[in-house]
This record gives sequence, structure tokens and C-alpha cells, in this order.
Amino acid sequence: MAHADIGLIGLGTMGGMLALNIADHGFTVAAVDASEGAADRLKASAGSLASSIRACASLADLVQSLTAPRSVLLLVPAGQAVDDLIGELIPLLDSGDTIIDAGNSNFRDTQRRCAAMRSDGVRFLGVGISGGAEGARFGPAMMAGGEADSWGRVAPIMTAISATYEGETCAAWLGPDGAGHFVKSVHNGIEYADMQMIAEVHAIMHDGLRIPRTQVSEIFHEWNQGPLASYLIEITAKISSTMDPETDRPILDVILDKAGQKGTGRWTLIEAQHLGANVSVIEAAVAARNMSAALPQRIRGAELFAGASGNWPEADLTSNDLEHALIAGKIICYAQGFDMLMKASEEFKWKLPLPGIAKLWRNGCIIRSGMLNDMANALESADQNNLCFAPSFANVLINSAPKLRQTVMAALQNGTPVPALSAALCYFDTLRSARTSANMIQAQRDFFGAHGFERTDRHGTFHGPWIPDDKAE
Amino acid sequence: MAHADIGLIGLGTMGGMLALNIADHGFTVAAVDASEGAADRLKASAGSLASSIRACASLADLVQSLTAPRSVLLLVPAGQAVDDLIGELIPLLDSGDTIIDAGNSNFRDTQRRCAAMRSDGVRFLGVGISGGAEGARFGPAMMAGGEADSWGRVAPIMTAISATYEGETCAAWLGPDGAGHFVKSVHNGIEYADMQMIAEVHAIMHDGLRIPRTQVSEIFHEWNQGPLASYLIEITAKISSTMDPETDRPILDVILDKAGQKGTGRWTLIEAQHLGANVSVIEAAVAARNMSAALPQRIRGAELFAGASGNWPEADLTSNDLEHALIAGKIICYAQGFDMLMKASEEFKWKLPLPGIAKLWRNGCIIRSGMLNDMANALESADQNNLCFAPSFANVLINSAPKLRQTVMAALQNGTPVPALSAALCYFDTLRSARTSANMIQAQRDFFGAHGFERTDRHGTFHGPWIPDDKAE
Repeated sequence: MAHADIGLIGLGTMGGMLALNIADHGFTVAAVDASEGAADRLKASAGSLASSIRACASLADLVQSLTAPRSVLLLVPAGQAVDDLIGELIPLLDSGDTIIDAGNSNFRDTQRRCAAMRSDGVRFLGVGISGGAEGARFGPAMMAGGEADSWGRVAPIMTAISATYEGETCAAWLGPDGAGHFVKSVHNGIEYADMQMIAEVHAIMHDGLRIPRTQVSEIFHEWNQGPLASYLIEITAKISSTMDPETDRPILDVILDKAGQKGTGRWTLIEAQHLGANVSVIEAAVAARNMSAALPQRIRGAELFAGASGNWPEADLTSNDLEHALIAGKIICYAQGFDMLMKASEEFKWKLPLPGIAKLWRNGCIIRSGMLNDMANALESADQNNLCFAPSFANVLINSAPKLRQTVMAALQNGTPVPALSAALCYFDTLRSARTSANMIQAQRDFFGAHGFERTDRHGTFHGPWIPDDKAE
Repeated sequence: MAHADIGLIGLGTMGGMLALNIADHGFTVAAVDASEGAADRLKASAGSLASSIRACASLADLVQSLTAPRSVLLLVPAGQAVDDLIGELIPLLDSGDTIIDAGNSNFRDTQRRCAAMRSDGVRFLGVGISGGAEGARFGPAMMAGGEADSWGRVAPIMTAISATYEGETCAAWLGPDGAGHFVKSVHNGIEYADMQMIAEVHAIMHDGLRIPRTQVSEIFHEWNQGPLASYLIEITAKISSTMDPETDRPILDVILDKAGQKGTGRWTLIEAQHLGANVSVIEAAVAARNMSAALPQRIRGAELFAGASGNWPEADLTSNDLEHALIAGKIICYAQGFDMLMKASEEFKWKLPLPGIAKLWRNGCIIRSGMLNDMANALESADQNNLCFAPSFANVLINSAPKLRQTVMAALQNGTPVPALSAALCYFDTLRSARTSANMIQAQRDFFGAHGFERTDRHGTFHGPWIPDDKAE
């Protein structure tokens, strides 16, 4: 083989699949892994693609195998492993070569690495990739951050292997330094929220309304033909009708309700706090995963307080109501996510293209959906960058929000926890309140801390004529 | 004056009041401020206490004025100012002297400073102080972290000037390094949540049920004689009946609903994410402040979606119902706060005394209340450290939670935003669910990412027999 087009370090599930994807698109790839023999095994399993894969024995071997200027893709666990690899690569690379971190890195690490790299002459890109193993093999979504011309150098390969939506690529450069990994973490936060709202609606149907699992599956399948059409609804339909071969019971009956997480949802929430962004639906979803892990507490709570009654009067809520509740919840959740992206864009001076991000998410990634195409259009003209205010989505919300309200109220009445749907509803109710209860908060803050308040009738900062506090008893 | 008992640096509102408080308790204090003349002005305004205050012109003057081993109290803005002062003080102090940072420092800074200080021989304490100006002058609550014997050295002064509750001091050493400032930040988070829930109930009474302001004030005043008796309810009663002298309108009518924050609520939420603690009521309160600042968005939202209807049917909800709703919300919010403290205690190996913290908060601080006395007792015996599971509070919740449910449902039906109360209710409903919807989350995660799931019927990690994904369209 002549020199390879790109190098790939880290041949776990994602890395291995990406290597095959690259080879499948007519490029040659030099591959290496810390685990001995992994590169050889990949090549051996690659069938007709084997001739496009060069299994390397070392980093030095990999670097020497690449066409200059070199492009090296890292698919290793976020954190120290990335820094270690960069440290080993820098002496082997030349000025103008590009390292691409395609792992799930925290964007603050990516910012730091971009800043450190510039002085070395080696270029650095942080690229968030979504789509799981399947996506990595056949077309993921890619969110790139770093210098635009560095992306331009690797874009021919990256866009070739990415997903497309009606002919448009789902890989794009979004902004400087950590912009790509930041957008990826918001994507993951939205993914948590999407999943949680689906799980809540599923619980209402199955545990509350006692709709049989096969029928629940059919309802999700129907929804997948309408406005909710998406990968997550599609797999939910499949999951709902899947049987456990060992017990011949529905698989959902035997899966423990203890959800894991890898931390990217938490990162999103931490950054939301720094930005003062309200992403309450994502907060509820992450909290629900934390609570799911606290099984002993929940068992004790059920003993003391008795759980949800189950067996609701079925007539209260139709599947059409639930579909609209989920549509409203989804729009609100995405509105929060895009609002957070806009706040980050201002804070870090990234000029993030909100419509471009929505376009990029239309295919390849876990939250891919048809609605994202409408969102891309709506965000071009949304008032104050709030998706809820775009005319097309405002009209949907006017129809769907009452169903969200009806759904949350029915769940609360019956004691079924719906933290994400209810957070979405509370956000909506706050968003449409020209006057909120925060005047009381400001009065209290001024009373005990002399923090001052603004007035409705004139500009400036004022204090109240508070009666002096009674001496603490 | 002979050598002074303690030095105090930083004579803003809090520092000045603390100096007077110290002098008022028979100790002598050497005081200095970066602003020239501030120490002289303090002394001049101190009346009969002036002879116990030494106004110093410089840090060196202050250090020379102190009895050895010296104790120096810092009351300066959190952040760089603290590090700068420490840097200037270290060369002036001797091994065995103690610096006490009594500002609102982030506990991670306090951890760092404790670690750095140990090698110098100068001791360092991080002490969170709550109570506002009034508390600083007549008795605040103090949450101390650092080495126990360093606290022992300064405890005679610190406990003398602190608030007491039935003769017990509201100042205590809580654990090593950042423990005191950490507990203070959770205190502040709870304060945000307490205030937000009160504001929501107030809005229901005034905006929803259209109860006249004077009557609302009376209701809060009555509540202040019962289980909700607390400083925040007391001042809410006063605020509700306060008139604006300039317009002769109720002061709440002229205060803009745009709430500020100083960041400690955000810190609490960021640490909650690191710990995997669910503090959803605090999250809702911080988010409500963020939303309150987004006035142009809310005005646009009100135009598009029409705000709350107002004018509810009054019969739906009595003030007694609302009192119980607030009781339930408060218990749940504090349960989350104490759960977070327990998780931090395990993470940082602090051995935080939960009942001791509840005792300390009974007086002096902003969230002081009689209920904290019951909480202190309950936490001695709470199952799994969850306040909701302590028999006394479990019984209250069994009675009050249905009123919380009724209140949230009425508010949602009428479109009044109640994010904090509704987060409390959702937490309660999750806490009493032995089985949640998280089985769906785990099924989805395994479907698209092969993350595996646990089963209800055996140990281990398993994967589902998923039908292969349809190729992305």
C-alpha cells in the first residue's frame, strides 16, 4: 500500500467501525491500538476492505505510513488518554499535521488542547461523533470544532463517511476550539431528555392506562409515521414488542429499572449553570437516572408512601393526546437546548450556526428526526432564538401544549412520576408569563440582604421601606 | 489598648457588623480595610464599643496588634481577593497563627487553600456565615471547616458572637478543609428553594385565588405560628402588607419580577451534578431566577401563548391546603439537601454530622426555622439518611403530600408556573416508586449503544435480542 490517507488510533467499537467506514468510502487508513494484535484482527475481519487498511505496530509506524500533511484521528476514552497520546504524537508529527480528537471529550479539555497546540504548529480539531456503532460504520453525525482551515483539510474524508439527509452532509465545522465537543454534549443532554420523555409516556400507557405491550408498540410505530418520526421512537416501538427468549416474557418486564450514564449529561448541566441557561427538561432526565440507581431508597419509599395506583380510567387520555404531549415536550426541550447553545455561542464568541446544527442532527445521530428539518428552517427566523417563538412551532405548541398539560395532570393525579414532561410544562408556563412571582424573591432579597430591586414604573435600583426585623428570638 | 484578641480584614457591611458584634461580646478586635479611613469610621461609629476596636492602618499594623497565636478573620469578596490577602499575610504571620476565611468562598478554593497552607505552619479555616447584616451584628450561624484544633482555638470568640437556639450555639466545626463552605453553599441552595416555593404559593394566593394582599399577609402571619414558622415566612408576611410610600400602592405591585443571584445557588447545582445528587427543587429555583431575568422573552411568550388565566374558582384550594403543600415541599427540599450533604460527606470523607448541621441552622441564618429542630431529631434516626423516611416526617408527608398534589394540579390547570413545587412532587412520586420507567431507558441504551442492562430475575449484565436496526434512511 502507498501512504495512507488518514491514521486512526484506538480500535474499540467506535474506532473499528470508523476504520471500516473510511475504507468503504475509497480511502486508505493506517490503524493502531494500544492492545497488541487489535489492528491485525481488524484487518483480518475487514474482508474486501482489508486492502485499504494498514495495521500498524506502533505510533511511529502509523505516522510514517501517512501522506503528508498527516491527519490522525483519535478514538480513545476522554481524559488523560487523550493528553497522553497527544504527548506521544507531537514529537512524531510535523508542523501542519492535524490531530483530530473524535472521542467524547469535555469541551473545556478541547479548548485547553487547542490553545496548547497552536504554538507547536500541529493543528488540533475536536470532533463530536454521534450514532453509536451502527452510525460509526454506516454514517454518523459529526460536530467539528477548531480552526476552519484544519477542518477543510480533513473534510473530504469526514463528510464522505458521515450520514446525509436528502443529500446534505451531517458533518460540519461549527466554530473554534471546543465548539464541536460542546455541541455534542448538548446533543447528549437532549438525547437524555428525549429518552426520558418517551419513557414517561410509555409508563403512562403501560403502567397507567394498562395498554397491552403489543398495542403500545403499535402506537409508537404509528407515531413514527407522523411528526414524532425519529430513531428513538422507532427503537421504542421495537423494544416494546420484543420478547425475552429465556423467559418468554416481554423484555421490558425483565429489565431492571436502573439506568446508567456516562457523564456527558452531567457536563451539559454544569455548563448550563455556568451560562445561566434553563435546561430543566435535561435536568429532570439526568435526575431520573440518578434516582433510578437509588433502588433501595425507592423500595423503602414505596413501603412508606405506596406507589402509583395504576389502573387509571382509560377514557381520560387518548393515544392522540399523548402524541401531542410528547410533541410539545420535545419542542420545549429542544428550545431549551438551542437557547443554551446560543448562550454558549455568545459567551465563547463562537458564532454557532443554530440552523446548521439542527440540519446536522437530522440524520446519523441518536436524536435524528424529521422534526429537526423543520427546526432548521424555523431557527432561521425564530424570535430571540427561541424555537418556541418560530411561527410554525408556536402554532404546534398552541395546539399541543394543552395536551401536555392534560397528560401531566393525569399523571400527577395518579402519582406516576413525570419529572421531564412536568419540567417542560413549567418552562412553557413561565415562558408565557409576562409577570412571574419573582417580585416576591426580590422583595425577600432586599429585606434580608439589602440587595435592591428594580421597579415596574421607573428605572434604577431601589430599596423597600421594610419594618425593621424583629430581633431573632 | 493591649494586644487585641482577633484581627478582622474587610469592613464592608458584613465585616463591620461582625467587628461590632465581637466588641459587643467583650473581646477586642483589630480592624483594617483596603479603603483608607474605613477602620477609623467604624471605630468612630461604634459608640461605647469604640474602646474595644483598634483601627489599623495596614496589615502589618494589624498583625502586630494581635495576641499570639494570632487569629485573623477575612471578610472580603470570594475569589482572587482571598488569595491575594493570604499571600500578603503569610510573611507577616508565624507558625501556629490562624487565618479564617469567613466569606462566601467556593469550597474547592477552600480545599486548595487548606492544602497549600499546611506546609507553611499557618493554619487555615473556611467558615461559612449566614444571617445577613442583621445576623452579623447580633448573631449569625457559622459553618466551620478545617482542622478541628484550629477551630478549637477560635471557637470561644466565634461561638460567643453566634446565634443560639434554646441555649445551644449555632456555630460549629463540621469537618476538614472545605466542609464549612460546602455546607454553606447547600444552605444557600435550600434558601433559594425555600424562597421560590413561598413565592409560588404567594402567586397562587394573590394572582390565582385573588386573595387581597392584606389577607395574604395575615395568612403568612398565621403560618408563622405553626409548623412553617420561620424567618422567611415572617418577612413574607411583612412584605405582603408593605406599602410603597411613593405611590401608595402595595410594594409588591411596583417591584419588577427580575430576580438576581450571586452564584452560590449555581455552585450548589454544579456540585450536585458531580455527586449525582438529585436537588431538583433547588434546580427549579435557580432556573426560575434565570427565567425571571429573561423579561423580553417572557413578554413575547405572553403575546404568543397568553399567560395564566388568573381568577381561579376560589373554592378549589383553601389556605390550609396551601399551608400543607408548602410543608410537604419544604420537607422534600430539605431531604434533597441533606441527601446531597451525605453524598458529599462520603465523597470527600468528611463525616458531616447531619443532625448537627440541622441544629446549627435553627437560628441566625436565613433559613432558620422551628422545623429544623424537628429535622435535627429526625436525622438521628432517618432510614438511609433520607429525611422523608424519618417516622415523624413520613407521617407529616402522608398527610401533606396530597395537598401538595392538589396545589400543583390546580396551578397547572390554571397555567400558573410552579416549577419548584412541581419538582418536589415529582421527586416524591419517584421516591415512592419501587419500579420506574427507567427500564425503557436501559433498553434504549442497550439497543443503540450495547450498554447492557441488569435483570429483575438474576444478577449480571445482559443484552437484548434486538431486531437489527433498519438502515438509516
